[in-house]
Amino acid sequence: MISKEQIASEYQLIQNEICAGLEMLDGKAKFSEELWEREGGGGGKTRVLENGNVLEKGGVNFSAVHGQLPVLLKQSFKVNDNRFFATGVSIVIHPNHPMVPIIHMNIRYFEMNENIRWFGGGIDVTPHYVFEEDARFFHQHLKAVCDDYNDQFYSKFKKWADDYFFIKHRNETRGIGGIFYDRLNPESAEISWEQIFEFSKAVGRSFIPIYSELVSRNRNKQYDDLNKQWQYQRRSRYVEFNLVYDAGTKFGLETNGRIESILMSLPPQANWAYNFQPAEGSEEERTVSLLQKGIDWV
Amino acid sequence: MISKEQIASEYQLIQNEICAGLEMLDGKAKFSEELWEREGGGGGKTRVLENGNVLEKGGVNFSAVHGQLPVLLKQSFKVNDNRFFATGVSIVIHPNHPMVPIIHMNIRYFEMNENIRWFGGGIDVTPHYVFEEDARFFHQHLKAVCDDYNDQFYSKFKKWADDYFFIKHRNETRGIGGIFYDRLNPESAEISWEQIFEFSKAVGRSFIPIYSELVSRNRNKQYDDLNKQWQYQRRSRYVEFNLVYDAGTKFGLETNGRIESILMSLPPQANWAYNFQPAEGSEEERTVSLLQKGIDWV
Repeated sequence: MISKEQIASEYQLIQNEICAGLEMLDGKAKFSEELWEREGGGGGKTRVLENGNVLEKGGVNFSAVHGQLPVLLKQSFKVNDNRFFATGVSIVIHPNHPMVPIIHMNIRYFEMNENIRWFGGGIDVTPHYVFEEDARFFHQHLKAVCDDYNDQFYSKFKKWADDYFFIKHRNETRGIGGIFYDRLNPESAEISWEQIFEFSKAVGRSFIPIYSELVSRNRNKQYDDLNKQWQYQRRSRYVEFNLVYDAGTKFGLETNGRIESILMSLPPQANWAYNFQPAEGSEEERTVSLLQKGIDWV
Repeated sequence: MISKEQIASEYQLIQNEICAGLEMLDGKAKFSEELWEREGGGGGKTRVLENGNVLEKGGVNFSAVHGQLPVLLKQSFKVNDNRFFATGVSIVIHPNHPMVPIIHMNIRYFEMNENIRWFGGGIDVTPHYVFEEDARFFHQHLKAVCDDYNDQFYSKFKKWADDYFFIKHRNETRGIGGIFYDRLNPESAEISWEQIFEFSKAVGRSFIPIYSELVSRNRNKQYDDLNKQWQYQRRSRYVEFNLVYDAGTKFGLETNGRIESILMSLPPQANWAYNFQPAEGSEEERTVSLLQKGIDWV
């Protein structure tokens, strides 16, 4: 049986690999690191990079925390013994280039009082401009990662991502989705704990190949002022999603998490023009038309 | 007894007066207007101004809506007959000048099934840089408005604003506060309905004299790039408050309100640098030290 120490230790390796990969990809920016401790137990390593050649702001956060769950959460779990352990790696990258997409990845493991345990995670992409061939590449890559473990994973987790990364008040998805999964255990996953752990690591290790490809394809494209303005508008939708709906952010804000680590996901700059509408027949309009659930990119 | 039509009609006059006053104050920008209708009944007039001499983005929204309350709210009111009527004027102004403060004002009236009725509202100021003499002027002016109706109002509503306009996860107030009140009726206010209505109008009509003074005092001050960067950082806190805590915004998002009217309060541009900290002994640090509850500005 895999121990929580093993999981945390592999997750740290993945954080290291991803940071090294991103520095190589960018060619200029270097991560700075802050170690932090949590009052109730455990802590983390927040790594942030800013003002790179193409990565304008990015965070790769590792944490492994433990202690007693807050009373409210304890009640929702209906348990007496509320000691918990949680570890994970979370990433958000905001590129400076409007043709390069924003990306988010998270892998996590949670256990409570030795009876409850599960893995969760996901990876999703938010292009400022949707390019169909990139969306296909991304989803095909994810499908291949999933298919190695269970041939139901991709369709199930793709739909979960569509539903989760949805900005209800705008009636649009945050981006082109990806995969999202939670509470994965042998019963729900129909594979062993060892295989679920392997799957979790495979999702983590898919990040660099995926993002390197998406950056390489788009970083040398031309763009103008209008494209930049559109990028800032799209980023404001990202802010709206994260502050209004994102479960991880809400959990962090409510449980007194380390605020700068939680909000490292927010973009370096976002703009809200009143009632900003894309021009008819424009690339911007085409992008918005693709921000909906249920598109089959594979 | 004042009718709801009378209240809505006076509120529209106040919207007109304020828009005229703001155009005069700015000297360049003009409001554009959008009329909208609510599916369940009623509608509003959203007026927005952008890229003025000093007012970079401002909205003055009037609405008068009626219909049936959503089921969830109906339950929380414990009533069978859930027909409601609500009218109000809401304002948020983001100036381009970092020494000029952001301002927010709201007056509103709500009634349900002829038994429940109340007034609510408030006015508060969010300086990017806190100037003590401006904060004193602002609070003294508010105290004078309040004292005309009930000499308990100011201290009660000032504390209410301190508690309401508080960014819990940052452990700082949104700005220097002001007044906030809700569910005001003759029982809670110890004055008649007519006097409460007069108080509501007086709050609305205090907006132009207050903001004109705050703009005039500061619009010709020098500023540099650092001041602008700080302004963008402070605006990101404003976004955090409005999307995470503001009751009006949450209500609007949950009840399918007109999204651009609800989110007109968000700034034209906001920046999130990772772990942005003011320099020791700087004006920025001094400002943060004054963003706390319970300061007596009078």
